[in-house]
Amino acid sequence: MITTIAFDADDTLWHTERIFISTKEKFAALLADYHDFNYIERHLDATETKNIKHFGYGIKGFTLSMIETACELTEGRITGDKVKEIIGFAKEMLASPIDVLEGVRETIETLSKEYNLILITKGDLLDQETKFARSGLGEYFKAFEIVPNKNAKTYKYVLKRHQINADEFVMVGNSLRSDILPVLEIGAKAVFVPYETEWFHEAVSDEELEGKDFARIEKMTDLIDLIKDFQS
Amino acid sequence: MITTIAFDADDTLWHTERIFISTKEKFAALLADYHDFNYIERHLDATETKNIKHFGYGIKGFTLSMIETACELTEGRITGDKVKEIIGFAKEMLASPIDVLEGVRETIETLSKEYNLILITKGDLLDQETKFARSGLGEYFKAFEIVPNKNAKTYKYVLKRHQINADEFVMVGNSLRSDILPVLEIGAKAVFVPYETEWFHEAVSDEELEGKDFARIEKMTDLIDLIKDFQS
Repeated sequence: MITTIAFDADDTLWHTERIFISTKEKFAALLADYHDFNYIERHLDATETKNIKHFGYGIKGFTLSMIETACELTEGRITGDKVKEIIGFAKEMLASPIDVLEGVRETIETLSKEYNLILITKGDLLDQETKFARSGLGEYFKAFEIVPNKNAKTYKYVLKRHQINADEFVMVGNSLRSDILPVLEIGAKAVFVPYETEWFHEAVSDEELEGKDFARIEKMTDLIDLIKDFQS
Repeated sequence: MITTIAFDADDTLWHTERIFISTKEKFAALLADYHDFNYIERHLDATETKNIKHFGYGIKGFTLSMIETACELTEGRITGDKVKEIIGFAKEMLASPIDVLEGVRETIETLSKEYNLILITKGDLLDQETKFARSGLGEYFKAFEIVPNKNAKTYKYVLKRHQINADEFVMVGNSLRSDILPVLEIGAKAVFVPYETEWFHEAVSDEELEGKDFARIEKMTDLIDLIKDFQS
């Protein structure tokens, strides 16, 4: 008997990756005198991956990685004005309007009438909290959990905190790595809703998916019928 | 009847301000060719204050403010190598050992035997969580709450979440603005433990304190007797 449905936030409820992609384009344009787009992007991705252990996820860490990349790719010749532009990108990203994905609002509204909804997300606290407020979806959610990493331990902790059993819990998200695999590991259900692009940090090999039993939907509105199926 | 004691973290349980102060000194040294220490510090403080609405509290936001200040104070002439040094300061700060304040460990250990202890702190999630882990104090705490701001609303939310009544709750911290005034506002008790320096964002005028009823202790070990007094 499902009582609680949890949702990932970024690229599950609203577009996020788009903002990162367009910022990367602006960033590459800033360094166009030095290198081509692909080279810059590859270097930025590598710096970001290396820095996650220091800075975690989120816009501020991403920005520090952009600045570090700019310093390296220009061999220190980047100007202060360009660095300031990069800081400006961060402020724009943090203030950018929340673009709720198609079908999300009506699905959330419908499900909130029968189930407890929880948001479970990684990232900066301040950033996620203001996004949640700006999305207008806050009223449908019973709780809001920001976690440093999404692994089996974190999910167990969240379930314990809310006194939910694994067999009454469903997680919905766009990341196999973060929203699906660890949730199956604790014996709960998971629903994969792929986003238009996959974030390179989150890729999962076919081997890791072998024998894993989770649902996949192509659009969020399909979740309503799927949850009904779970219950019957 | 007190059941729950909540603690602020930074500069209440462990030194934090010290790390910021020493980083500010290194930052000023980096720009010593351009301006004197006081001028640099004033400008950095102003940038930080202006940026809090974008970046919130924490080391990453502070670092972006240092970089922005460096660009401005050098009129864009800052070199990429110096900017990279500033990013290096951030990594050092994030990895610096946790220096638990005198008397904290024994007080926490003693109180944890009779009371539920909660940590309530602002700042970056990842940073605070790893500090909590590195402090070795984690085992004594029942819960760990990271909030974007400490106001009456946040405290109400935390109390509701843990099903605690205001009259069974005590908050302990070094900030009148964040740990004392909003807690009194919701009808709970508050204990002020001043730190060696006061953070300029947190200063409170004498008028705001008029008629406010809270306890003040000079060292953390005094908390044990004070809580006994509250109970009798």
